[in-house]
Amino acid sequence: MIALTVLAASFSGRSMAEPADYYKDQKVVYHNDGGGPDNVAYFKRLLNSIQNHIAAVGKDRVEIRVVDHSGGVEMFQIAKTDKEIAARLDALKAQGVRFLVCANTLRERNIDPSTLYGVTERDIVPSGVAELARLQGMGFVYIHL
Amino acid sequence: MIALTVLAASFSGRSMAEPADYYKDQKVVYHNDGGGPDNVAYFKRLLNSIQNHIAAVGKDRVEIRVVDHSGGVEMFQIAKTDKEIAARLDALKAQGVRFLVCANTLRERNIDPSTLYGVTERDIVPSGVAELARLQGMGFVYIHL
Amino acid sequence: MIALTVLAASFSGRSMAEPADYYKDQKVVYHNDGGGPDNVAYFKRLLNSIQNHIAAVGKDRVEIRVVDHSGGVEMFQIAKTDKEIAARLDALKAQGVRFLVCANTLRERNIDPSTLYGVTERDIVPSGVAELARLQGMGFVYIHL
Repeated sequence: MIALTVLAASFSGRSMAEPADYYKDQKVVYHNDGGGPDNVAYFKRLLNSIQNHIAAVGKDRVEIRVVDHSGGVEMFQIAKTDKEIAARLDALKAQGVRFLVCANTLRERNIDPSTLYGVTERDIVPSGVAELARLQGMGFVYIHL
Repeated sequence: MIALTVLAASFSGRSMAEPADYYKDQKVVYHNDGGGPDNVAYFKRLLNSIQNHIAAVGKDRVEIRVVDHSGGVEMFQIAKTDKEIAARLDALKAQGVRFLVCANTLRERNIDPSTLYGVTERDIVPSGVAELARLQGMGFVYIHL
Repeated sequence: MIALTVLAASFSGRSMAEPADYYKDQKVVYHNDGGGPDNVAYFKRLLNSIQNHIAAVGKDRVEIRVVDHSGGVEMFQIAKTDKEIAARLDALKAQGVRFLVCANTLRERNIDPSTLYGVTERDIVPSGVAELARLQGMGFVYIHL
């Protein structure tokens, strides 16, 4: 077990061996439309991946937006009672991540935006999918877990 | 309930407050390889999202292609009997959306293309995945629900 | 049945009718984070799609990298005993495909990389998601089955 840990450390430590310019500046849009049947597990995995992404590239070198529509909007409903998800959202926002919520989803699902954790009017976009295309047109690259 | 509806309307109405040039012209390829276990629900969600996309950007400002392979080809089998999916496909085509079907999937699954709703020979592409890459190389941005 | 087969052949044969310059040179990154609940079926479908991709475009005209993180890393654990997956991995590598494994996933899941089929130290990248963005910034287009 000790040997395994050392080996794993040696592999994962490779990141320190990357040249300083391994990552150029990045603009990234994450697509979040949920990951049922277990949405909570999906949201934790998503938020953890974004945190790892920032840690790898450095928060001053990566601009991240998360477009949330369809089942993805449940993340902000769940965060009202799930302290861990709420804390991860807060931590990512403090590092500059912006979470954008689809107005079409709110209307179709009859969701009152005031019931969404940490979402304000300026976080609402007219259409999640159109926003995904708009941001890619502005140079953001796309990732969908 | 009335208050909620008004609030939701106020939020979703924000789209009208977007500047006229919020969206530039878009070219978008949707990746459809199905969304089991409930493919029907997935296809309805996909077609609804594409309709919302066009409504947001305007049909003269967005060119949309849908690459259908693997489980995604079932959409055209289901549409033979599901009137709602057939109607949504027709409506999207009337707005310029093109649905492309993977020849490899037809061969591997022994699907006779004449059993697919609304698919003609010119809608068949040699390989769905190669087409996704080809279209991105031509400036289409990628969305996979 | 014979008629169906002939018809299908006629459709799938359309690829031979594509103009010789139908595909330009491609650089493609596949995103593999698993596809539970049936990961084995997902991995076979993924590897089959990549093989079809190469066959369509030609191995000298397409450069493919597969970024494996989260549940996607199980592909290399399964390949230790699943001869079919191992053989497909070997065949794709022989055609130039590179499989990259996320160091964060190895650390979080306590996976000893020596237990992964065919993975060497130079296949490990610091972060799977950051690598997906990095490669897109280098002109690779993104596909996630």
